[in-house]
Amino acid sequence: MSFSPLIRQLIDALRTLPGVGQKTAQRMALQLLERDRSGGSRLALALTQAMEGVGHCRLCRTLTEDDLCPQCADMRRDDTLLCVVEGPMDVYAVEQTGYRGRYFVLKGHLSPLDGLGPEAIGIPQLMTRIAEQGTFAEVILATNPTVEGEATAHYIAQLLSNKGLIASRIAHGVPLGGELELVDGGTLAHSFSGRRPITL
Amino acid sequence: MSFSPLIRQLIDALRTLPGVGQKTAQRMALQLLERDRSGGSRLALALTQAMEGVGHCRLCRTLTEDDLCPQCADMRRDDTLLCVVEGPMDVYAVEQTGYRGRYFVLKGHLSPLDGLGPEAIGIPQLMTRIAEQGTFAEVILATNPTVEGEATAHYIAQLLSNKGLIASRIAHGVPLGGELELVDGGTLAHSFSGRRPITL
Ligand SMILES: [Zn+2]
Ligand SMILES: [Zn+2]
Repeated sequence: MSFSPLIRQLIDALRTLPGVGQKTAQRMALQLLERDRSGGSRLALALTQAMEGVGHCRLCRTLTEDDLCPQCADMRRDDTLLCVVEGPMDVYAVEQTGYRGRYFVLKGHLSPLDGLGPEAIGIPQLMTRIAEQGTFAEVILATNPTVEGEATAHYIAQLLSNKGLIASRIAHGVPLGGELELVDGGTLAHSFSGRRPITL
Repeated sequence: MSFSPLIRQLIDALRTLPGVGQKTAQRMALQLLERDRSGGSRLALALTQAMEGVGHCRLCRTLTEDDLCPQCADMRRDDTLLCVVEGPMDVYAVEQTGYRGRYFVLKGHLSPLDGLGPEAIGIPQLMTRIAEQGTFAEVILATNPTVEGEATAHYIAQLLSNKGLIASRIAHGVPLGGELELVDGGTLAHSFSGRRPITL
């Protein structure tokens, strides 16, 4: 019992953030209150606008407040390449490699034990996107290099096998068991250039 | 160029928080958007209410939205003991030791090179508080065990020397050069019980 109710409420709310425990939340709350009230108010406004305004891109399903995300709205990109990832953070990671094709963002990976099948992660929407676009020659499966990510890539490759498309998998330059978004840009660039067709 | 404007704005605003860099801010923003929108909205509300509502306790100057903070409003505390600290986080740290006297919260420490003299950190208000209360027998100087914290404690002890009060300094169980709020509760409890009068 040493913080007032509004400060305790702020500390509790800050613990919502990933990786923020009790002590870190206390430091954050008091530092904002003591030294940066305008920064705290700016963060409140940014949170409100983002939580209420951000939806999903009509084409790639990444997070955006617009009908199309920056990647889908960009007319100069290569419409023959589609990169499939597990989440919006992976788009950011793949952009760092210099890739300038198109994207499709799944909702994670297949996870039968959690009841997450193809529909739950958006694979039917991926197949619709590929059919409607009609320009893709290669689908780069850049799901995470985990057991589930590999299984998801393999599942999609099977669906694509009779569609006249190359389904490729990013090379194992990425460390096994890791998360794509934690890999440095150079390693990920290597794994992109070393990608190869999936043999079923 | 891979996040939409509202998401970029949120990432920038999250970097306001202490210890949060670009990559951490990205993860926080996307995790809130993908998995916990209600948590994000709750944080926005808590920030707004705290930034607009929290002021300073009339007696001890710690952060609170009420006229008196929980420590000053508590009638069961020892009115003969006053503990002087550098900031609100230190009140929390000292509470962990079991101390149940009163507090006065300075705005940091004396720092002549930064132009921070006694007025800037609230020492005149501390002296007024002690005079008006009239019940304190001992003033525990629990400023940080840094060069500036020691100098601040010594300065206050000199002001109190002809007031018939004991001015004590927390014992050097706390590591020199450290920050009070980072010390574990046991060490801080030791340094409280080992406090001794300041000899000028
Ligand atoms: Zn898009
Ligand atoms: Zn108070």
